[in-house]
Order: sequence, then C-alpha cells, then structure tokens
Amino acid sequence: MKTDQKTLDLIDAYWRAANYLSVGQIYLRDNPLMRKPLQAEHIKNMILGHWGTSPGQNFIYAHLNRLITENDLNMIYISGPGHGGPALVANTFLEGTYSEVYPNIGQDEDGLRKLFKQFSFPGGIPSHVSPECPGSIHEGGELGYSLSHAFGAVFDNPSLIAACVVGDGEAETGALATAWHSNKFLNPATDGAVLPILHLNGFKIANPTVLARISHQELDQLFRGYGWIPYFVEGDDPAEMHRKMAAALDEVMDEIRQIHFNARGGAETERPRWPMIILRSPKGWTGPKFIDGKRNEGTFRAHQVPITDPATNPGHLQQLEEWLRSYRPEELFDETGRLTGELADLAPKGDRRMGANPHANGGLLLRDLVMPDFRDYAVAVGSPGEASASDTLVTGTFLRDVIRCNSKARNFRIFGPDETLSNKLNAVFEASDRQWLGQQAEEDEFLAADGRIMEMLSEHQCQGWLEGYLLTGRHGLFNSYEAFIHIVDSMFNQHAKWLKVTASIDWRRKIASLNYLLSSHVWRQDHNGFTHQDPGFIDHVVNKKAEIVRVYLPPDANCLLSVMNHCLRSKHYVNVMIAGKHPAPQWLDMPSAEIHCTKGIGIWSWASTDQEDNPDVVMACAGDVPTLETLAAVSILKAHLPQIKIRVINVVDLMKLQSKSEHPHGLSDKEFDLLFTKDTPVIFAYHGYPWLIHRLTYKRTNHHNFHVRGYKEEGTISTPFDMTVLNEMDRFHLVQDVIDRIPAPSSEATYLKQQMQDMLIRHRIYINEHGQDMPEVRDWKWKP
Amino acid sequence: MKTDQKTLDLIDAYWRAANYLSVGQIYLRDNPLMRKPLQAEHIKNMILGHWGTSPGQNFIYAHLNRLITENDLNMIYISGPGHGGPALVANTFLEGTYSEVYPNIGQDEDGLRKLFKQFSFPGGIPSHVSPECPGSIHEGGELGYSLSHAFGAVFDNPSLIAACVVGDGEAETGALATAWHSNKFLNPATDGAVLPILHLNGFKIANPTVLARISHQELDQLFRGYGWIPYFVEGDDPAEMHRKMAAALDEVMDEIRQIHFNARGGAETERPRWPMIILRSPKGWTGPKFIDGKRNEGTFRAHQVPITDPATNPGHLQQLEEWLRSYRPEELFDETGRLTGELADLAPKGDRRMGANPHANGGLLLRDLVMPDFRDYAVAVGSPGEASASDTLVTGTFLRDVIRCNSKARNFRIFGPDETLSNKLNAVFEASDRQWLGQQAEEDEFLAADGRIMEMLSEHQCQGWLEGYLLTGRHGLFNSYEAFIHIVDSMFNQHAKWLKVTASIDWRRKIASLNYLLSSHVWRQDHNGFTHQDPGFIDHVVNKKAEIVRVYLPPDANCLLSVMNHCLRSKHYVNVMIAGKHPAPQWLDMPSAEIHCTKGIGIWSWASTDQEDNPDVVMACAGDVPTLETLAAVSILKAHLPQIKIRVINVVDLMKLQSKSEHPHGLSDKEFDLLFTKDTPVIFAYHGYPWLIHRLTYKRTNHHNFHVRGYKEEGTISTPFDMTVLNEMDRFHLVQDVIDRIPAPSSEATYLKQQMQDMLIRHRIYINEHGQDMPEVRDWKWKP
Repeated sequence: MKTDQKTLDLIDAYWRAANYLSVGQIYLRDNPLMRKPLQAEHIKNMILGHWGTSPGQNFIYAHLNRLITENDLNMIYISGPGHGGPALVANTFLEGTYSEVYPNIGQDEDGLRKLFKQFSFPGGIPSHVSPECPGSIHEGGELGYSLSHAFGAVFDNPSLIAACVVGDGEAETGALATAWHSNKFLNPATDGAVLPILHLNGFKIANPTVLARISHQELDQLFRGYGWIPYFVEGDDPAEMHRKMAAALDEVMDEIRQIHFNARGGAETERPRWPMIILRSPKGWTGPKFIDGKRNEGTFRAHQVPITDPATNPGHLQQLEEWLRSYRPEELFDETGRLTGELADLAPKGDRRMGANPHANGGLLLRDLVMPDFRDYAVAVGSPGEASASDTLVTGTFLRDVIRCNSKARNFRIFGPDETLSNKLNAVFEASDRQWLGQQAEEDEFLAADGRIMEMLSEHQCQGWLEGYLLTGRHGLFNSYEAFIHIVDSMFNQHAKWLKVTASIDWRRKIASLNYLLSSHVWRQDHNGFTHQDPGFIDHVVNKKAEIVRVYLPPDANCLLSVMNHCLRSKHYVNVMIAGKHPAPQWLDMPSAEIHCTKGIGIWSWASTDQEDNPDVVMACAGDVPTLETLAAVSILKAHLPQIKIRVINVVDLMKLQSKSEHPHGLSDKEFDLLFTKDTPVIFAYHGYPWLIHRLTYKRTNHHNFHVRGYKEEGTISTPFDMTVLNEMDRFHLVQDVIDRIPAPSSEATYLKQQMQDMLIRHRIYINEHGQDMPEVRDWKWKP
Repeated sequence: MKTDQKTLDLIDAYWRAANYLSVGQIYLRDNPLMRKPLQAEHIKNMILGHWGTSPGQNFIYAHLNRLITENDLNMIYISGPGHGGPALVANTFLEGTYSEVYPNIGQDEDGLRKLFKQFSFPGGIPSHVSPECPGSIHEGGELGYSLSHAFGAVFDNPSLIAACVVGDGEAETGALATAWHSNKFLNPATDGAVLPILHLNGFKIANPTVLARISHQELDQLFRGYGWIPYFVEGDDPAEMHRKMAAALDEVMDEIRQIHFNARGGAETERPRWPMIILRSPKGWTGPKFIDGKRNEGTFRAHQVPITDPATNPGHLQQLEEWLRSYRPEELFDETGRLTGELADLAPKGDRRMGANPHANGGLLLRDLVMPDFRDYAVAVGSPGEASASDTLVTGTFLRDVIRCNSKARNFRIFGPDETLSNKLNAVFEASDRQWLGQQAEEDEFLAADGRIMEMLSEHQCQGWLEGYLLTGRHGLFNSYEAFIHIVDSMFNQHAKWLKVTASIDWRRKIASLNYLLSSHVWRQDHNGFTHQDPGFIDHVVNKKAEIVRVYLPPDANCLLSVMNHCLRSKHYVNVMIAGKHPAPQWLDMPSAEIHCTKGIGIWSWASTDQEDNPDVVMACAGDVPTLETLAAVSILKAHLPQIKIRVINVVDLMKLQSKSEHPHGLSDKEFDLLFTKDTPVIFAYHGYPWLIHRLTYKRTNHHNFHVRGYKEEGTISTPFDMTVLNEMDRFHLVQDVIDRIPAPSSEATYLKQQMQDMLIRHRIYINEHGQDMPEVRDWKWKP
C-alpha cells in the first residue's frame, strides 16, 4: 500500500509542528505561538540545547506514528543520539502523553509557554531524552548503548518492536559497533523485533562522522556483513523524503511481518536477515541555511544552537523569527494553542502512542519472580569448616530452579560474557540453553534458538541487554569475572543515575534491581595473573547514591544463596554480589546463614574466644578468602596464645559499616561500637582495596584502631595462598598484626611472631620448588 | 614469487618446534626433549595454560618470519587472543631473543627445562603475552585492544608493519568492533601499516564465536564494509595451509607495498583499502583429535588444557606422549637441545626478529620532547582574581607550540573523542589538523591526511591508539570530558598494571607517561545535566600502585601550564590533570604558580587572615571551582567576621595528602601538621567525591577535624553556581561550615549564618525566575 499524498502532507505538517516546538524549546520563554512579532524579551537568557539531531528525529517519529496507526503496532522509540531532548519532548507533547503525566503543562498556549521555558532551564528538564520524558528508557547522555537497550527491550516481548534511532556519532563507539551483532541472539519466534534507523546526519560536535564519509558501497556491505538488510532513505527535499520514508517503512514492516510469520509458523529456523533503515538527512535540517555567511544546515555548526545571540543581535533576531515562522505555526495550532484536530488524529491512540507505551515504564509491567525456597539448596554444614563446596556451583542449582519456576512467565534471564560455565553456574544449563541464532555445529553444547542464558564476549552487550530487559519490566542477573566488570563502569554509572532520578518521578514505577554476581575474583586469579586481579568495582559502585547501591560479600554458599534470594526479590537497586567458585570451606548451616545475612554483619561466637567479654582484639573479615585467612589466623592464635580474647566479626553487607546517616543499611554508632568496641584493636581482612574500609568507617568511634589488610595491587601467576601472602593478608601476617597490637607481648607471643615469619619463608621456598602451596596450608581445616 | 616446497617444509618444521615448545610449557617440568619415555614425574603438579590459540599463532609467527626475511621487513607482532603466552614464548625462544634477555634460559636442554618449568608457575611467567615476554607491547589479559594498539604503534612509523592477530572471541568486544574503522585515520604516506590477521578458530571458553558462525558472504561483506580487503586462508591440512598462507602473505605484502608506493609517490591521496587476512584454522590445531571419546581439536574443549590428568591417568599419559612425539622433536633439536641450524636460519636476524624489534620496547626509542618554555604562555595576573581566562584555552596555546616544536620529530599527538574544540584546546588547530582519511566535504574544518590530532568518537580508540603510540616510544595527551573517561576505566587498569610490571623488568626501558587532560568537568556540566557529572575517575586511578599514578587539580591557567609542562616531561606514570574550560578568575602569576605547583600544596597567604599565626580554621581547596567557592567564602568571612583567623590551603597535587609511606609524593606527617595543624577545624572543598579526601588523610593527626565538601551525586540542568549549592559546596554553605565549628559563636556569627541561609533561598528563587545566577554571585570578585 502506498501512502497517499494527503497523508504525506499531514505528516509534513506534523513534522513542522514538532520542529517548531523543538526550536521553541531552545529559544523561547514567551510568545510561544509567535502571535506577536518576535522580541528580545521573548528569548531565554541562557540558550541551550541541541538542534542538530532534532529535525531528523522529528521526521522519524512522525513517520512511525503513521506506521503504528496503520498497522496497530506495539512500538517504542529509543533515541540514541545524545541530545534528542527537544524532539522527543515535542513529540510526546503533540501526542498528548506529556500533558497526561505533567498536567501542569497543558495542550494550550500557556502549556506551550511552560514547555518551552522548562527546557534546559534550572529546575526544568535536561537536553537529553531524560527519565522525565515519557516513553524514554534510554537517556543518551553517554553514547553507545541504544541498540543493546533496544534488544534487551524486545527479548521475550514477541509483539514489541523497538524502533532504535542510532546516531552516526554514537555508531563510532565500541559498544554500538558490536551491538549490531545482537541479531545473532534474537529469536524471531519468541522475541520482538528491533528496527534500527541509522541516522546519518553526518556530524558530531565538530567532526564529520566515519559512517557518513565512506562510500555507499562500503556502507551497504558493512551492514549486510553485520547481518542486516539496509534500506536507504537519502536526501534533503522534504516532499521527496516523505515519500521515500513512508515507502521504506512499509517495506521493512512487511519484512518484519514475514520474518515473524516464517518463524512463528514453525517453518523457518534459520537466523533471518532483519531489515534496517539508513536515513541520510542534513544535520539541523530545515534550520538556517547560512548564518553570517557560513553554511549551517548540513554542517557540524548545526549541532547545538545555530543562532547564538538573537536577543542582542537584531539581524539574528529577525533570522530566528523567519526560521520559526517557516514552520507556519498558525496552520498547525488552533486558537487555544492546541494542535489542530486533523494533525492530532495522526498520532496513535492510548497506549499505542510511543510516549505512553507501558514497556517504556517497565515497572508498570513488572511481576515478581516465582521463587523456589533457597533453603532447599543449602549445603549441609555439620560444624563450621567441615564441609567444602563451590559457592557459585551451589547457587547455580538455585538459579536453575529460578529459571524453571519462571519459564512460563519468560521474565528472567542470565547474562554473561562467555563465563557462565567458567563461573561454575553449570546447573543453569540443566534448565535452559544459551540463546544463539548463529550457525550450529555438531560439538556445540547448550545452544538453542530459545534460551534463558545470553552470552556474548562483550560486557557492554551483557550490561546493555540486561538494562533494556530490566527497564521494560523483567528480571535478570549478570555474571562476570570480577576484574573485567570495570569494562562497564560507565554503563553502571548511567544506570545508577537513571535509578536515582526515576525513583523520584511519580509516574515512573520501580523496576527490578540490576544484579551482578562477580566471581573468578581477585584472590583466585593466581593462575591468570595480575591482569585478572582487580576488586575495584566495589569502590566505583559505592560512589553512587546510597539509596541505590548494595554490596554483598557472602563468605560461603549458604550465605550466597540467602543473598541471591534477597537480591532477586529486590527492586530499584544495583546489587553487587562477590563470591568464589572454587571448593572452599563452608562455615554456616542454613539457619545461621539466613540470620547472618539478614543482619548483614555479626559476631561469629563459635570462632571467637572472648566469651562475649571485652575482647583483646577484634578480627573482622569480609569476603570468602579473607574469612578463611582470618579463621586460620584465629586457629593459630588459639593454639599458641590461648589467653588472647579474640572476637571474630564477619561482614556480608558492606554498607553496614557506613554510618546510618550515609547509607540506609548503615549501623548506628551505638550498634557499631557494640560490635567493634570503642577502643580495641581491629584487624580487618577485606576482599578489596583496604582503604575502602577506612573510607566507610572513618567516622566511627574506634576507627583509629582499624588496621585493614586487602588487595594492594600485588600479584602474578602464583598459588591461591600466595596471593594472600603477596598482599600480606594471609594467616601468618594476620597473626603478626595481632601480636603487634598486644600492649606488652609475652615471650610466647614474640616467639610466635618469629615462627610466623619463618612460615612465610618456608612458604616461599616450598612454592618455588613445588609450584603449589605447602600441605599444612592446603590441608588446613578449622577445628571447633 | 611462490614460496618453494623446501621452504614450506622448513616452515612446517619450525611450526612443529613452536608447537612442541608450547605443549611442553603447559605440561613438562622435566624430560624437555622427550629423550626418555614420558613418566608421571615429568609432569607439572599444576597444569595451567591455554593451548587452543597457540598452534594458530605459531603458524602465523613462522610464516611472518619467512616474510620478514625475504622482504627485510620492520615488523612487530601483536597477539590479541587472550592467552597466547605459550606461543609467543616459544617463538621468541626459538629465534634467540628470549635467551638474550634471560641468559639463564639458554638455547639448550637445560634452558628448555627452565623455560617449561617457569611457565604458569609461581614466580614464573603468566599465561598471557605478558610484559616479561620480549616483543610484546600488548598483554591480552583483558581482551579487545590489540587492533588499536597496533594502529597506535604504526602512527608516525612509516617503515613499521604491525602484524596484529585478532582473536575471534576478542572480536566480539566493543573496542575491537570499532577498531576496524581505524583505517580511516591511517595516513599511508607518513604512517606504517597494520596487517590484521583475524584468527577464526571458532571458539571462546565455552561458546562458539559470532564471526565463525556467520556465512562466508557476510564475513566478506563485513570486512569490506569496514574498508578492508580480506584474504581468506581456511582449512586444517597443514601442507595445504602452508601453501595458502605463504601465498596470501605474499599478496598482502605486495598490496601494502603498492599502497605505500602510491601514497608516497604523491600520486594517491584517497584512503586505500588495506589488505587483511582471515585465517580459519581449528582451535587446538594438531592437538589430540579425541580425548575420552569426545572431540577435542577444533572444539571449545581445546581452549585450555586438553588432557588434564596425565600424571595420574596412564592412558592419558600415553596420549600426551604421543601428542608430544607427533612433532618429532628429535628432528628439530640437535643433541645439545638447540634448534637445528637449518631451522634456526629461518628466523630473521638481529632487530628484525619480532621479539627483538626495538619498537616493542619503546623506551629504547624514546626521545624527550622539545619543549617550549611554558612561562611564555602565562596569563598576566596583577593581583589574585583580577584577570579572567579559560584554563584549557590558555594551555591550548602551549600545546600548539609543543606540536610545532616536535613536528619534525613527529613524536607527539593529541587524542580525543571529538572534544578537543569543546574542551577549548582550539589553538592546537593553528599548528595541526586532525588526521582524517575519510571523505572530505566543503565545509569541513581542520581535517587533513596528515595531522597531529586524532579524534574518533570512541574513548576506547583514543586510549588504545595512545597506548600503542606510547608503548612504541612516543608522547601524547588524551583530552576528554571528565565523566566519560570512565569508559576506559578498565583500559587504564591494564596500562597501569603494565607500567608497574615493566618498571621492574631490567631490559624494558621506561616510556612516556600516559597523560589525561579531563575538562568539561563535573561542576560545569550544569547545561548537560546529571548524566555528564562524574568525578570518580580520580578514585579509580588512586587504587593503582602509588609509584605509577599522579593526580593534579590546578586551580588556574598558570598552574595548569606548569602541571602540563611537568607531565609531558615525565616518564612511566599515569598523570591525570583536571581543569576547567570556562572563563574563570586567575589567582597566581606565573612565578607564584610555578612555585605552588612544584610544591604541589601550599598556604595561600594572600588569601589567609591568620598572619602565619595559629589559625582558627583551615579552609582547604582542590580544584578550580572549589577554590573559587572557598575564596568567595573567605571574602564573606573577612567582611563580616574579621576576627576569625583563616588559613587558606590550596592543593594541586592530590597525592601530597597521602602519607609519605603510601605515595612517594606524600607529605611527611610533620609537614602535613605544619600546614593543617594538629587541632584546628579544616573545611575542605574538593573537586570530586568528598570521601576520597578522608581515604587519603585518615592517618593524619588532624584528620578527625576534617570536614569535606565535594560532589555527592546531586545535579541536573542548572547553573554553574547552583551545582555547588546542590552539593553544599558553595560559599554560603562553606561559611556556615566555618561558623558551625567556632567554639562559642558570637551573635555576629549566628546572624551571618542566618544570612547565608537567606542567601540560599534567594538564590533558589532567583534562578527559578531568571534561569541564571544572581548578579552578586556572577559578578563576585576577590578583593585583596
């Protein structure tokens, strides 16, 4: 069906209306309908905003509206280019959703005035497609993640189409460059569709873009190579471009429909070649052609504010007036300031409007997970340290059943960069395969077109897909090596900021937490070496708003089960869980683990020798390896210096250490003092960089007595125990730390210190010869 | 010229030797030449290492050796796949470079025994191509950066060819996916060449790779679309593959030579389409075909150690023996254990050996920059606060002349993700264009085939290129928005780790520092909003080894000049400089700035009122905006509470705050106490997250008196001053902070505190109405 000229004319008018509103937001604080001649007093004091990308996005939005209405589509719009704010605000205003969520900004002249004024204005709204903008699940402040968000949104949403506008600047980022391969992970039978619209407007802030400056042939080959079929819509003549765009959209819609039909009829099992659109239009399209003799439309100069000084330069004021009037607002808005009925009818109705689609406010659709009882997966722990287990291997069985319990709801997925098996979550493959639409070969394992586990060797994709999945109201878990999660530091930042802002927007509903399980952690990278050792993601995370971030260091499998259960049920947080994958001693039976994790911090009286009396020393630990070394040190001290009263404290929830005023989980000073005392030396063995413990506790009464051991960037290919020795967090150092803090050490204590130093030398000699740890270290067990 | 069969046979033998050494490193601690039947006692206790990628890389290396020798090439080898250690160690050993840098490991049976034993052994060498391996500038612990390193290496090295093996796992990362576009930034006339060899061995740890599971047509289109001409070498029959590989290498070498000829003859100015090789060979090629009935060669099971238990499983021991003997070591090594002469002759000689190429030990080639006198670019500062200037704009003029002074040496470049102009380094474009080989259009500015400024909208590329440039002995600067530098957090980690390790390897020479200039910083992201606000890179950086990292917060332009001069002259550090770009008050004339920056921290007596007496309060500041607010607060206090004795301390070098035991720049406790006193309240206004100051100073005498203001994740679209108000670091809050710490505040003080609260309310009302800061804030100037 060819779109008729009348419809195209209406689309053009609608486009002009959106362009007019975009320019209005950037410039005007008054005279919103240009019913008076434009005066300096109508111009904002600070003119901010990004014009360049706006007309192209308005063009796309108007055409998608037509497509949605004609085909009754369930579609969301993801705006990749950084600063598309004016366009998306304009469009959601025109379709009515903006006024529905912000009744104060009505569809009339007064509403328009407010709409214009608030844009890029203190206390107003940002120049990006920010959380305040209805229909947005992607802010685009930092570039590169639109396409992975789009894919995340449509996984398990078979009727949803995510129209994803990819800026050609953004397309240069690494994350975006590999995101095109997401089509190898999309199942046309059970997932929705992503319609990428690569917007080649040719320029970034000051440079041309790479993709706009290669040949048509290369561009075509590139996207075919990525597995897409590109449809080109190129030009600058509006009438001609409307015809081309409408025709291209009809074609790609036919293709998508055909792909779905083939896959869902059950006939087709091969990965389809999905269609995409490459839209080449001038940057700042319909804006001033020249300003002060320099070309503006179609150049990098159109990126932000084309005319910078209309309030003080009468010639420029006139040019701005002509520009605004070129959209003929008097034809577009009725006398109340409302879009004319004929134009308003172009927009889809109700939830079909892209600004009102509930998928873009995922909390509306969020359903709690059906959770198996985590206690059923407990490791039997007779006495502490007796049993041995791999913490993540055990948790894998729990996660397997989380998958099973929610297989019908299809609202839970696990993401990881090819490390789900390496991280020992093996059991999940009993419940599901990896979703994989690439070719398959005979020896492949756990690959299927439909699967709950998503693995691509790109932390960016794992994170971006998961974010898109969560933002549209589902649940998930990202498992990764600890060191390399830094690859997504900046993506975490942006998501944490999104959570902070949306938590205080009334009409936004809370979404499921972003859960990280970091394994293959710093202390057990003895075989991969120094490059794989970095526990700093915790430090990065705790810089974000306390209301949003949670960090857990379960010391054993039962604790990890309890923590995992808690995190998967939680909402609107970022939860970081760090756990080991190698067989390790198990300390707590499940009832004890549950109590311990619920409290988040506690005295392990079974390991302590202070008989709930005033201790001589507090030995605190957080993390599985620090806990092991602490208990080994305690056992040495108990054997050789039984008179020393030791209190052992284990920390699961790191945020307990912070003051209550700093973090909602923080202990009160009184509670903290009860645990750590006001004046006793504290030897703290910590999983990460030691100074973080100081940063969390510097306000506490007893802080000056804290002596923290942790990872201090020492490591190489070595043994597990040697990793702790290199960083002086091993049992032999910890014992010395205690002795160093005894007021008047006995001769036994002095002798023990010497023995500890000897043990360290023996250790060094032994591993140099044998390449493994001494038997007394390897075979050490806690004796109750 | 077709490579004759005899040469191919020799290459095959050389390849077998390298494969043999690779397997030997993984398994053997004795019997290195298999002169005895293989026994359990010959097997290592811990069997670690990655076999999968090794035979393919050995194959490539052997063929490149032939190519180098025949064409007298200047070539380095970059090993992208993660764990190619065994292969590169084997090859540099065979060619003799390994024994040259490690004389203890000679080219004989004893040397072989040591070579085998040290691999993945405590105190030995890692399983990656680590800094210990001669010829390496790329470790490959974290994946994705090989190709950008290769491009960085060949910029301004017209005779150098970087053969870059890209793993198909690595190829899924974002950084690598966009790195293919680096060919739009390579000038064939003045730069060298990169020869990418995409190694499709089909599998990652547990998954197939995306690129190995798309059609040949898509693969071909993809790389043509990226602008390359792919040459396919595919198969598993060694003899056939040797013929194909030799022929392909001859072809690509002809093409590279032709491209250089065309460009350097001056005839050709268009971007060439460079050749690349796609090598599809089985993972674990030549390894066991089946183990326990499961296919191994050519599957993901060959990733690490194919036979895991030869010491305890006699059948497996026999299979390992057969595998080792399949390379016929008796034909390859003479009776002393040395490679036979005929084979040894295949390797290039002297510096032509890829392990000995000086470009891979860049410090050998490093020449100091010719530096203009930074004092010549000083802003005239009569009295403090009188002049106004943009700090980065001023520094741009200095950098412009650094470019000019070194234009003949061609050893300095500036990198940035399309932000060099936005960060106001405008003047650099007077000295150079951006290097750009894409198409050009009429309105473009500052683009040329030859330029010193590299801009692609990918922080990963900027960082990767710069690292490659530095590692090969040149100098550079990365300028970026502060918030988005987190995109390369993990790349910084890996580079800092590389610097730490190489600093203690005798034969490695120091390289130039990695210099970051972070502008468009958190406090002036009032117009871009919350997504652009993140000062946490400092926190990330200071977790790395103190010997390596430096952080500078110059308060004005003259200080930035002094700091920049220092950083560009320094070696083997990571220097982070953070500076503003907007016009701001200038505090110090150049002589004072130079002294202040050399000390790194100091009392500003011109701003202080304590007359070098004991102060009532210390007001410390670090960063341009905190300095401004501190001085504004001081001026209010001076006017209203002249009796209070204030000491103003400004911190340029953040590491001065740390203890001398923690950082080489750290002040001694005595020096620190002299500045901050032992008992006076300290109000510290800091650029970043406030808790970092606590983490740096918690050991100091007066730490309990520190009250730190900084960014605490509050911000949106607003005004510059409002950013400080939202985070309570503004002058009105700082004055209150001081009053709160006066022991018995006078009624004037109490009244002033009330006034400050009123000012904050006035501020809120004013910006809501006017969208800009109150005149008394905007127009405030320091009065001497």
